[in-house]
Amino acid sequence: MTQLFAQPAELRRAIRSGAFTGNTSGQAPGFVQCNLAILSKDWAADFLQFCQKNPKPCPLIAMSDEPGNPLMSAAGENLDIRTDLPRYRIWREGKLVEEVADVSDHWRDDLVTFLIGCSFSFEEALLADGLEIRNLSEGKNVPMFNTNLACQPAGRFSGNLVVSMRPFVPSDAIRMIQICSRFPSVHGAPVHFGDPAAIGIADVNAPDYGDAVTLKAGEVPVFTACGVTPQAAIMQAKPPFCITHSPGCMLVTDIPNAKLAIF
Amino acid sequence: MTQLFAQPAELRRAIRSGAFTGNTSGQAPGFVQCNLAILSKDWAADFLQFCQKNPKPCPLIAMSDEPGNPLMSAAGENLDIRTDLPRYRIWREGKLVEEVADVSDHWRDDLVTFLIGCSFSFEEALLADGLEIRNLSEGKNVPMFNTNLACQPAGRFSGNLVVSMRPFVPSDAIRMIQICSRFPSVHGAPVHFGDPAAIGIADVNAPDYGDAVTLKAGEVPVFTACGVTPQAAIMQAKPPFCITHSPGCMLVTDIPNAKLAIF
Repeated sequence: MTQLFAQPAELRRAIRSGAFTGNTSGQAPGFVQCNLAILSKDWAADFLQFCQKNPKPCPLIAMSDEPGNPLMSAAGENLDIRTDLPRYRIWREGKLVEEVADVSDHWRDDLVTFLIGCSFSFEEALLADGLEIRNLSEGKNVPMFNTNLACQPAGRFSGNLVVSMRPFVPSDAIRMIQICSRFPSVHGAPVHFGDPAAIGIADVNAPDYGDAVTLKAGEVPVFTACGVTPQAAIMQAKPPFCITHSPGCMLVTDIPNAKLAIF
Repeated sequence: MTQLFAQPAELRRAIRSGAFTGNTSGQAPGFVQCNLAILSKDWAADFLQFCQKNPKPCPLIAMSDEPGNPLMSAAGENLDIRTDLPRYRIWREGKLVEEVADVSDHWRDDLVTFLIGCSFSFEEALLADGLEIRNLSEGKNVPMFNTNLACQPAGRFSGNLVVSMRPFVPSDAIRMIQICSRFPSVHGAPVHFGDPAAIGIADVNAPDYGDAVTLKAGEVPVFTACGVTPQAAIMQAKPPFCITHSPGCMLVTDIPNAKLAIF
């Protein structure tokens, strides 16, 4: 059985020492977990602009103070981005080449870190309100889909929006929209509900990423911008070098989820 | 052509003098207009509880300071509820018996006034955001429907929710939900969208009140709690005496719509 860490700093220490190597889902409840993207300085300005132009799929929680600095004080005390995630992916020219538990050997003076909000934060707020989140109740990964909705391009980055899908009856969908609207830095309000074909999804039971979940009678699928979007844009742009987190192995920050609520 | 009054107090003066006798729609833009219900003291406590238990259809903007007082200082300077609406309806035992331009002759020391929020306020906020409101663009009354959603009963008052319907594409519906959530005292967020049958509506093109509006391909009907609900509950309870506004002839208050926004 996986040990549950209450404090993000304790979890990061266990990850850094190699004592914790698993998925971060459910760890340090109440604290923001982030998607990670690390690019070289000459690609970072374009990527930053891509995030700025596409805040729903790419909500930027924090970025490096300066290139090469691996300490992310905005996200956590004594937080070293090279060692504090359980698992990383190394990409070259848009291709996955390696998975590692530590990127110290890959670190360079020109690397810029981007921390992007993740749906764990708003799912916690939905659960607190008593809503059922189907992917959690069925013990699955959230279903994610490529869409025909184009992101705003920025420099070498472009691509279509990727969305996650959660089913709700309409009255719960309305409540879900209200709650998620309070959290713009973790994807905010959904972008679509109802007819999947209207945003280019052929089969709501055949996700492009993650697992299919049950859609019950009377429920509508609700589609939210997803943090896979920036990863897909990076893979499409094929930068010579890039580091991301491995799926499910997020950066756990010291930022309380409640701090992200705008009202 | 109807004169447009910018200031509520000027409009109420013109109404009181008999110079203005029309519909208040579009008058005094930016100011709250209210549904009116006046009941005798021995029915008022039950009705107040009905409003308290059903805040979405019956959002109370103001009520009498004490029975018999026709001045509503909470709603406007020098506002006399007996003379300041263009047209009133007099009801006895739940039946409409008379329409009048002034209720001074009907006034009694035991009458209690209730002012209930109206959709004009949130429609203004939706228009300001650039959303199209179909009933306005088609120059029709908003379509309204009886539903199978029971209100919380209170004393002698009970009944089902009445809803208004506005069509939107899903992305606009999401924005509409965000905007209306800011205005709980004018019905707030919708209660349902999509399948009309799910809330007991047999035909979305055959409203029980108001006019049908066009539902275009790709749009979903969005249903909002409606101020006809308390009127329907009053008619069903059959109090010996009751005064309401005539449809479209609302009380125009000095309260700015912006004041109703909760964030």
